[in-house]
Amino acid sequence: MEHDASAAEDRDHKFLAIAIEESYKGVESGDGYPYGAVIVRNDEVVVSSHNIVLRNTDSTAHAEMIAIREASQKLDQVELPDCEIYASCEPCPMCFGAIHFSKIKRLVYGATAEAAGSIGFSSYTGDAWKDAGFPPLEIKKIDDSGAEEVFEKP
Amino acid sequence: MEHDASAAEDRDHKFLAIAIEESYKGVESGDGYPYGAVIVRNDEVVVSSHNIVLRNTDSTAHAEMIAIREASQKLDQVELPDCEIYASCEPCPMCFGAIHFSKIKRLVYGATAEAAGSIGFSSYTGDAWKDAGFPPLEIKKIDDSGAEEVFEKP
Repeated sequence: MEHDASAAEDRDHKFLAIAIEESYKGVESGDGYPYGAVIVRNDEVVVSSHNIVLRNTDSTAHAEMIAIREASQKLDQVELPDCEIYASCEPCPMCFGAIHFSKIKRLVYGATAEAAGSIGFSSYTGDAWKDAGFPPLEIKKIDDSGAEEVFEKP
Repeated sequence: MEHDASAAEDRDHKFLAIAIEESYKGVESGDGYPYGAVIVRNDEVVVSSHNIVLRNTDSTAHAEMIAIREASQKLDQVELPDCEIYASCEPCPMCFGAIHFSKIKRLVYGATAEAAGSIGFSSYTGDAWKDAGFPPLEIKKIDDSGAEEVFEKP
């Protein structure tokens, strides 16, 4: 049992690390802001995306939105109930809503929105809706993933 | 002054009517669900969009999201602080978040989310965030626009 828990933890860290890597790509490429997201189905990465707000001239082009759109199209499924999403940072209200509407079953994230807020990015969260009657979504925050570092000044 | 108020009312009804017309197009075309949105700048329609969730195989392709994306690209502006959005129905949480992030200055809508909910569509609203500290957004609900009719059973 202890072994299973540790394997699940390793799995979460592995996929979150890909999302964090994407968050750096988002900035280095000039595509947008430091956010990444990965959608996983059956232990496999379906898509790995980063924020492309600047590249697409589109304030809605957050990493999670792009990941949900691309995964839906790739899997040819309007909804993604068999998928999990790994986000480098706690999702904003828009993305939190999108995750719920996509029926994704599980959300794992690294940095807190507060950490993003500390350097001027949005610090809004989906907390206001925790009691709004949304369908159940398992949410897990991973500490010590290194996700906050992308928000640290160089 | 009375004349001005009436002209403003006529203006809102005119643009909302276009959004409602789009909501019918969304269904008739098979593109998606009965929702339409129009973005206006300086008294002119920038884009007029409907829900294309089914056409795009994308649960995030709500009318408001498509309208914001297309208007931003058309105007070559990441944010739309000089624009208003007219939505056939009260925006869902995802779209409400997107409207805030786009910095659109004014939202006018027709049907309530409750009316949409009465026939099985989402009845979630952005109400939970009214006290969340989002930047100011003028919100106006228009009655008797005919917007609810699209949700009535034939």
